[in-house]
Amino acid sequence: MALIDLIFAKKFSRELTAAQLREFAAAAADPATPDYQLAAMLMAIRLNGMTERETAELALAMAQTGDMLSPEVDGVPVDKHSTGGVGDTTTLVLVPLVAACGGKVVKMSGRGLGHTGGTIDKLESIPGFRTELPETDFLRIVREVGCCVVGQTGELAPADKRLYSLRDVTSTVDSIALIASSIMSKKLAGGARGIVLDVKLGSGALMKTMEDTLALARLMCAIGRHSGRQMAALITGMDEPLGSQVGNALEVEEAIRVLSGQVTGPLLTVSLALGAQMLVLGGNAPDEQAARMMLEAALREGRGLDRFRRMIAAQGGDARVCDNPGLLPQAAVKTPLLARGDAYLAGINTESAGLAAQALGAGRMRKEDAIDPSAGYILRKRVGDYVREGEVIAVLHHSAAAPVQKAADMLRGALAFSAQKPSKQALIRARIAPDGKETYENDL
Amino acid sequence: MALIDLIFAKKFSRELTAAQLREFAAAAADPATPDYQLAAMLMAIRLNGMTERETAELALAMAQTGDMLSPEVDGVPVDKHSTGGVGDTTTLVLVPLVAACGGKVVKMSGRGLGHTGGTIDKLESIPGFRTELPETDFLRIVREVGCCVVGQTGELAPADKRLYSLRDVTSTVDSIALIASSIMSKKLAGGARGIVLDVKLGSGALMKTMEDTLALARLMCAIGRHSGRQMAALITGMDEPLGSQVGNALEVEEAIRVLSGQVTGPLLTVSLALGAQMLVLGGNAPDEQAARMMLEAALREGRGLDRFRRMIAAQGGDARVCDNPGLLPQAAVKTPLLARGDAYLAGINTESAGLAAQALGAGRMRKEDAIDPSAGYILRKRVGDYVREGEVIAVLHHSAAAPVQKAADMLRGALAFSAQKPSKQALIRARIAPDGKETYENDL
Repeated sequence: MALIDLIFAKKFSRELTAAQLREFAAAAADPATPDYQLAAMLMAIRLNGMTERETAELALAMAQTGDMLSPEVDGVPVDKHSTGGVGDTTTLVLVPLVAACGGKVVKMSGRGLGHTGGTIDKLESIPGFRTELPETDFLRIVREVGCCVVGQTGELAPADKRLYSLRDVTSTVDSIALIASSIMSKKLAGGARGIVLDVKLGSGALMKTMEDTLALARLMCAIGRHSGRQMAALITGMDEPLGSQVGNALEVEEAIRVLSGQVTGPLLTVSLALGAQMLVLGGNAPDEQAARMMLEAALREGRGLDRFRRMIAAQGGDARVCDNPGLLPQAAVKTPLLARGDAYLAGINTESAGLAAQALGAGRMRKEDAIDPSAGYILRKRVGDYVREGEVIAVLHHSAAAPVQKAADMLRGALAFSAQKPSKQALIRARIAPDGKETYENDL
Repeated sequence: MALIDLIFAKKFSRELTAAQLREFAAAAADPATPDYQLAAMLMAIRLNGMTERETAELALAMAQTGDMLSPEVDGVPVDKHSTGGVGDTTTLVLVPLVAACGGKVVKMSGRGLGHTGGTIDKLESIPGFRTELPETDFLRIVREVGCCVVGQTGELAPADKRLYSLRDVTSTVDSIALIASSIMSKKLAGGARGIVLDVKLGSGALMKTMEDTLALARLMCAIGRHSGRQMAALITGMDEPLGSQVGNALEVEEAIRVLSGQVTGPLLTVSLALGAQMLVLGGNAPDEQAARMMLEAALREGRGLDRFRRMIAAQGGDARVCDNPGLLPQAAVKTPLLARGDAYLAGINTESAGLAAQALGAGRMRKEDAIDPSAGYILRKRVGDYVREGEVIAVLHHSAAAPVQKAADMLRGALAFSAQKPSKQALIRARIAPDGKETYENDL
């Protein structure tokens, strides 16, 4: 069946068979297929939708257009995926903690495009750290240390790569079926048997409502289960940056401070909740409660930080940063952002806050842009705090050449103040268990 | 506003403004615009539709991306457009008849792609006939003879040309808004002030139901009126080939036989009905009834054939064909198709009948194919006729190399027989008058 016939079928809202979805994925991976036919198909899917079964089969079909990894790691390989937030360093906190509790974390991460750097960019701010490793080294490190974080290895889901780039330029990004199948195609190809999803909700998130966010989380879990993966998902709030430090080296530093027990707060809370799910999926803990106790013990005893040290060393980085974060790149200039009146900090538009970090040099505008690993900011106030005129709300870290005034204006524009103390929303809004059971914030 | 924003708007079913539709048309005409964005927009329009106003403004905007002709012809330039049928030679019959009654017919026609040749292909079967003329010659002939039929002159509606080629390969052909705006963009650019539409209904037609056909006719009339053109439309049956001869030279011959009064039947009926509308729109007759009497007088007095002679001569062709059709290309072989039993001929699938002619060489499979001007067939029986075993139903005209058996099988497959005499449907099913008033078959 030619692609034109598949477009025809989807145009009339017909449900595509698994074989037809494999043909669509193969067409997407074939450079001879014209972009215009893929574009027409994407719009037909955006407007007429796909069933859960179609979405699951498309994700698997896209994965199968490239390498399908099957990591041998002396255990159940587990992975975590976040739909992306600001100041979201959970990966750097939970990966070593889970490894310290016996988990085998095979983590492939991307570079950031947009707000801030991705996990790979953050780790590369550690002097010497290598994120491109041969697959054999990657798996050896997972076996020995329990975790390894690399950029994409091999050619994963080339069909998705082609469609991903077309979605952006054809206004078909806002399709839950296309979002879910895209994310999951790469996760399925990556070979993790247990996958924990952190689906963000709030001003800095892909989805803005609880309903859409839950729908996305459910769909991704269904896709994973369809391909025999163990799945769990948390819906977590992204109504302010998760950590207090935003930027690449700044986030590594904050992760180290969390792992060393110096800092608690939302970043730790979410990291522990996600990490517990990973331990359950990996078979390292009988249930969530036990998993959480294991993680807390590892944190208390410094075993998480120790694993981070070992992972950094195994990946060629300078592990001394764990004890002396001053070895991380340091910004030449630090500019405080001062409060202009007395009020409660009532909210932070996370998307704008992310763009402020990008303006300072922490993120990329275009794929080929270089980032400044030292750039970003430290929030001294969080939502709910009372701020007095002249107090420091944040400290911007940047180079002498950075457009600091513009970035400061952007960050200030992201802040909302109020005379009343704002009510804070729960951080963990919902959970989807491996068996599909859902629990909502009041019961968590 | 960039094209991506227009796609976004149409994706959410928003109504586009005239300015936005001009931007879309300009983008379509701009070679720098990527096909994939146009493809996504076409699918969004196909699935979310356009209002009548949007469709009218898109047609005009597409016309305005190229030359806008304004023919000076000592009268009101009139044109006729048919949505295409088989054995449909109305143009060759009505153009000279309308000219003989004082009409000024500026007719730009296309080459055929599909079933059979287009009007241009038919005329080119006349030795010497030229369909590519400088615009000045074209207009001089219209002024002197009253009619001229040429291929497209100038660059008409380049935006439509681009979108037309993309619709076919993105499964977006079946959009009434896209069909109507495409047809009308070329008609608006062609400059006729009065346009008569012949919208076909039946097995060989673009639209298969009365409802869809009427909707298309109404929409095209509305588009024309929106741009200040006088419009009229007939819905005519295409349940069997209109004439009895199918093929290029064969259809020219049949037109000559009709113009010389030797043949009557559906081809003449439809030609007179359309021609009467043209005379009314051109201001040459006060009403349809008077127009019809003028046409019948012209036919009776041989003035239609005389105009055809003059037009052929003015366009470089051998006008002697009007008196000696044997000068037209003649097929080397004539193969009869014999009845295999006794029955009424109950119906002809016109699309299949067209494909049979194409197989004999009368039509093109691909744009670059050559056609055989002598190829086609003559139907000896029409729907409603009783046929006895061994009688000749049709005579196939073809070269020695043509796949005659395949074509004969296709034509035979197009025929339906019945023991009962079939009821014949009206030939002219509906009429839309210049003021938009609709009349249906029982009142016509």
